[in-house]
Amino acid sequence: MADVVTETGTGLAEIVGADHVLTGDAIGEDYTHDETLTAEPTRPAFVVRPENAEQVAAVLRLAAETGTPVTARGSGTGLCGSANPSPEAILVSFERMNAVLEIDTDNHVAVVQPGVTLAELEEHTRAAGLVYPVYPGELSASLGGNVGTNAGGMRAVKYGVTRHHVLGLEAVLATGEIIRTGGRYVKASTGYDLTQLIVGSEGTLALVTEAVLKLQPRMANQATVLAPFPDLATVARAVPRVVGSGVGPLILEYIDALTMGAITYTADLSLGVPDEIRDAAQAYLVVMLENNATERLDQDVEAVATLLTELGALENYVLDGSAARKLIEAREKAFFTAKGAGADDIIDTVLPRSALPEYFAKVLEIAQGNQTLVVGCGHAGDGNVHLAVFQKDPDVRHRVLHELFASGMRLGGAISGEHGIGHEKKRHFLELEDPNKIALMRRIKQAFDPSGILNPGVLLD
Amino acid sequence: MADVVTETGTGLAEIVGADHVLTGDAIGEDYTHDETLTAEPTRPAFVVRPENAEQVAAVLRLAAETGTPVTARGSGTGLCGSANPSPEAILVSFERMNAVLEIDTDNHVAVVQPGVTLAELEEHTRAAGLVYPVYPGELSASLGGNVGTNAGGMRAVKYGVTRHHVLGLEAVLATGEIIRTGGRYVKASTGYDLTQLIVGSEGTLALVTEAVLKLQPRMANQATVLAPFPDLATVARAVPRVVGSGVGPLILEYIDALTMGAITYTADLSLGVPDEIRDAAQAYLVVMLENNATERLDQDVEAVATLLTELGALENYVLDGSAARKLIEAREKAFFTAKGAGADDIIDTVLPRSALPEYFAKVLEIAQGNQTLVVGCGHAGDGNVHLAVFQKDPDVRHRVLHELFASGMRLGGAISGEHGIGHEKKRHFLELEDPNKIALMRRIKQAFDPSGILNPGVLLD
Repeated sequence: MADVVTETGTGLAEIVGADHVLTGDAIGEDYTHDETLTAEPTRPAFVVRPENAEQVAAVLRLAAETGTPVTARGSGTGLCGSANPSPEAILVSFERMNAVLEIDTDNHVAVVQPGVTLAELEEHTRAAGLVYPVYPGELSASLGGNVGTNAGGMRAVKYGVTRHHVLGLEAVLATGEIIRTGGRYVKASTGYDLTQLIVGSEGTLALVTEAVLKLQPRMANQATVLAPFPDLATVARAVPRVVGSGVGPLILEYIDALTMGAITYTADLSLGVPDEIRDAAQAYLVVMLENNATERLDQDVEAVATLLTELGALENYVLDGSAARKLIEAREKAFFTAKGAGADDIIDTVLPRSALPEYFAKVLEIAQGNQTLVVGCGHAGDGNVHLAVFQKDPDVRHRVLHELFASGMRLGGAISGEHGIGHEKKRHFLELEDPNKIALMRRIKQAFDPSGILNPGVLLD
Repeated sequence: MADVVTETGTGLAEIVGADHVLTGDAIGEDYTHDETLTAEPTRPAFVVRPENAEQVAAVLRLAAETGTPVTARGSGTGLCGSANPSPEAILVSFERMNAVLEIDTDNHVAVVQPGVTLAELEEHTRAAGLVYPVYPGELSASLGGNVGTNAGGMRAVKYGVTRHHVLGLEAVLATGEIIRTGGRYVKASTGYDLTQLIVGSEGTLALVTEAVLKLQPRMANQATVLAPFPDLATVARAVPRVVGSGVGPLILEYIDALTMGAITYTADLSLGVPDEIRDAAQAYLVVMLENNATERLDQDVEAVATLLTELGALENYVLDGSAARKLIEAREKAFFTAKGAGADDIIDTVLPRSALPEYFAKVLEIAQGNQTLVVGCGHAGDGNVHLAVFQKDPDVRHRVLHELFASGMRLGGAISGEHGIGHEKKRHFLELEDPNKIALMRRIKQAFDPSGILNPGVLLD
């Protein structure tokens, strides 16, 4: 065994250069975990830092020969543990493959390496008058990680999620071949859609070494309406109506009163909501609109404000640019606020948006029945509910999560809208999902990764 | 062998009722082919007409036991032969599974059985103020067929294709299990995306028995600008600029002069283009816009007209509603016009839209080099080029198609944007595609269909 490890280390050094193979104490703490609240940090056997697809392919061939598990890592901002290595693993860190290879303004496409962060891509697209509209809270996240977990975020109600913006990939198969899928076009009917299968597969099917991403024209103007509501049920009922109005909101978030209090307190942010309204408000809707023409934007803001009042809002506040930006930033950091407040786990059930009122009632029932605090916010337009669960007892917490997931699934939903399954939600996934689908996914995994070296233990056992 | 056939027939009658199993001469001519120009009609051993997923599952279990191939059929309007049965096959016709099960206005979702046609769905969504925006030319096409081939059409430049509107499926696996994938939400990160894998798989992975489709708010107003251009290259260069302007066209089609002549002649349609302009025009762009507010629509029409003039249009014509509708209908029927004119094959290469000028030059070179007439039109905004090939000699025709596909692929494209591969383009697909990807697709096929009963010979050998 020790021989295999030594041999593997030597082989890795030959592939990427000795400087880019880390072992033992040279492996920094950052490499041992993602942002999941519930996982133990684990030091892998090796960290390798390849600089191109050929090196990744050689690493995978070596791993297949030696039967060594391989875990891919971007920025480590994931929330389900799919970038958490096992002790015997090779952790492939894409930190050196971090180039924006091209911003193609004719085809509205960006070509990026997996280590590029959302913040870096934003800089490049801004300069070209375009935008990559997928907007998960954490802008230090890498595009490779976003592809792996099919990251979502606040703008999905208008633009969709990572999956809808990945037009093509370069990927390395577990058997060491480099393939290219899709391309700089939005459609094809030419064989099975390998691109969409790899997106969201959490590093279990292939390692992505390049992504072709769809960009959108960047709109010049944005405006934000904040509407306090007397209760969460009224907010939930308002959501389908706002989407159905055809105004096409860029963002449609709900924030419950406890979460709003926490995130504005943490951000030291005053929104100008008078005391009597704040006292009466149990939940808030945040609606952001965008348009190239300020006149159209003003008309749309007015239409939304009128509609929200009809739908039971206590009041409407059109936030100025600075307040709006701060509120959205504070909302982005809701996870860290929850973490700081001592949350024991977070989940992101997704369900039909019409089922939100019933789900919120169910969540309250589950929380009270288990003497657990469950608070949250979420992408209301997508039916994607982010909940922070405060419960120290692991058995009670498991039961609470199980009931929260099962209730969401009974209402037609799924366990995760954008965080993924990873190690951390796998037990629930395997318990709750149709065994025929699990069996089919195992066979697909086998078709991609016959020796089972890619992120074993993630998603499936 | 005869015994197995008799036994299969008896078994099928037990499943769906004797009235819904057809054999021999009782099998109408329609069942023997789709609309592919190049395939020989073939009578299958059986046509069965199931009425629910359980019957489909029982048919597949019986087929697996007896090793009988199974081909799914919607309306038979496909263009690649993927609904063409083999002589020993069971053809599963979804004509009785033709109910629109629900129009869910809260979630903007339609739930349909596979035999529902686009025309029927349009009626239901119109009544609800919503629209299923995918718009392949043929409105008698079934949704099941659309899902199987990932159908596209003229509105893809704004709304995307079938793939982007299928949120979930009920599907029967080759082993007889009924699974449900996805749901009434636009995003999930909960295991491999089985929905997207089944979409576009041409009946080779599973039989779809229900689809959850995403709807959009229906816009109240549309307007159409027709712009003649001096040549195809100028049209091609204009396309990325129109898309990049951010005006968000609903339709952005190019039509070459020969095709425009043919489709307007066939439709007996006068567009009011003066003789001297028509004589100078080698190609046309058709730009359709939509908006709920007529004022905004008028402004956008003016902006597009100005832009087209800057980009080299000889003139701009804003078509009235009736002329626009007739032109779009005539364009939809371009396939039948080409067929009527004696076209020997049609193809629909897709490529990056910026590569259109180079591709058009290449097409001309290939056509002239092989003394073949190649004319066309297409979804310019998507880079999806529809070409009619007039060449009687099958060997020359094969060479022409091979060169057209290979040129498209060298420019970063793929063989088919929306028609699919089927039987008819398979030889080119297997010759031109990366063997590593073909091998991977075969393993995926094996994971879904271990006994190889689902549409054998389609897509892969």
